[in-house]
Amino acid sequence: MDAQDRMKQEVGRVSAAMIESGMVVGLGSGSTAAYMVEELGRRFQAGEVTDIVGVPTSFQSQVLADKYGIPLSSLNEVDHIDLGIDGADEVDPDKNLTKGGGACQTREKLVDSRCDQLIIIVDDGKLVDHLGQHMPLPVEVVPEAYVQVMEQLKGLGARPELRMAVRKAGPVVTDQGFLIIDASFGRIDDPAKLEQTINNIPGVLENGLFVDMVDQVIVGHVNGDDVSVTKM
Amino acid sequence: MDAQDRMKQEVGRVSAAMIESGMVVGLGSGSTAAYMVEELGRRFQAGEVTDIVGVPTSFQSQVLADKYGIPLSSLNEVDHIDLGIDGADEVDPDKNLTKGGGACQTREKLVDSRCDQLIIIVDDGKLVDHLGQHMPLPVEVVPEAYVQVMEQLKGLGARPELRMAVRKAGPVVTDQGFLIIDASFGRIDDPAKLEQTINNIPGVLENGLFVDMVDQVIVGHVNGDDVSVTKM
Repeated sequence: MDAQDRMKQEVGRVSAAMIESGMVVGLGSGSTAAYMVEELGRRFQAGEVTDIVGVPTSFQSQVLADKYGIPLSSLNEVDHIDLGIDGADEVDPDKNLTKGGGACQTREKLVDSRCDQLIIIVDDGKLVDHLGQHMPLPVEVVPEAYVQVMEQLKGLGARPELRMAVRKAGPVVTDQGFLIIDASFGRIDDPAKLEQTINNIPGVLENGLFVDMVDQVIVGHVNGDDVSVTKM
Repeated sequence: MDAQDRMKQEVGRVSAAMIESGMVVGLGSGSTAAYMVEELGRRFQAGEVTDIVGVPTSFQSQVLADKYGIPLSSLNEVDHIDLGIDGADEVDPDKNLTKGGGACQTREKLVDSRCDQLIIIVDDGKLVDHLGQHMPLPVEVVPEAYVQVMEQLKGLGARPELRMAVRKAGPVVTDQGFLIIDASFGRIDDPAKLEQTINNIPGVLENGLFVDMVDQVIVGHVNGDDVSVTKM
């Protein structure tokens, strides 16, 4: 296992250690979150945590939780979520996020917004001064509206592109049957305002800005062969 | 034909008379808009208007336009819409609307928001001092989020109810495969703010508030056996 993977595994281990018996847990998506679910599965099978219920943010985390026999529930069945652990594509100094590289941002936002405590797990390459620096902002739209939403995003200063699929002809289709527009803003100065503005464009279901939701960020670092974990 | 239907037919006739040859036309939904599409179909078949293209707001208007052979296009194919004619559930003195009794508000908002000129056709029973007085506000949501969106709507002061279907078991499913929550607010004091606030709740696709979009309202009246039409 290379240093990058060992670092993600260590971040997964540190975050999974925060899960206590009896908790309802939001199970995030992405490669680092996958290590967290695997470590939780190991702890659950070893009897180190009992009486937990997982709420997956994607098919990915659902399948992985099933593999370890972690009991699952759905958003409409639980009345709260104690702790959520999820990944991100970018994290700014105010702990605001962009998400949606995996096209799961709608269900992730549904789960993450209900968590009493939300922990984000990333490697230090995801830390940015301003959101939008490294990644375009994913915007999920009704298929029949993608042209007009792209026009509106241009009006907000973005370069929008319809996300095309790999191993499937044509565009990526989300778990909701919608399309993803990747909107490059270069630098997002007011994430709270932009999140609201985009959500108010007709035909937009959700966008990848997660503002003022995160309690703690656990960050993995690689230095040569060494891996380390810090918290912010 | 009773006076109510004659009134709707007259409103349909007056509004369809505003459509000129060469126009791209947004075709609204509802019982009054159906009369408008029928009158447009008659004018088109009689050669009174030529070279028109319709953009339907629902399966309903699509089927009706097909019946008259009106050429149709879709939102992603047209670069503008000259004139839209649509119905509403409530109209306030500022020409703001609630829509969505027919669960078509998302596609209606997509079409109506692109019209250079938007005409609303209603009977005078739809005129209210404040939106929310007569009708609950329809909110279209991702199925797996309906419980938490209802909680959020309660926090905004509404009494929310999941819309149940007739001639189908369980809830109404929209053209997008989503659910409708009817949120009774009693009286909506700031429609622009509420539209934004609700659209920013995770899991909400669109709500039935149409704010600052309407150019003219054509209103039908019934007085005994007489019908009349006014404009506002």
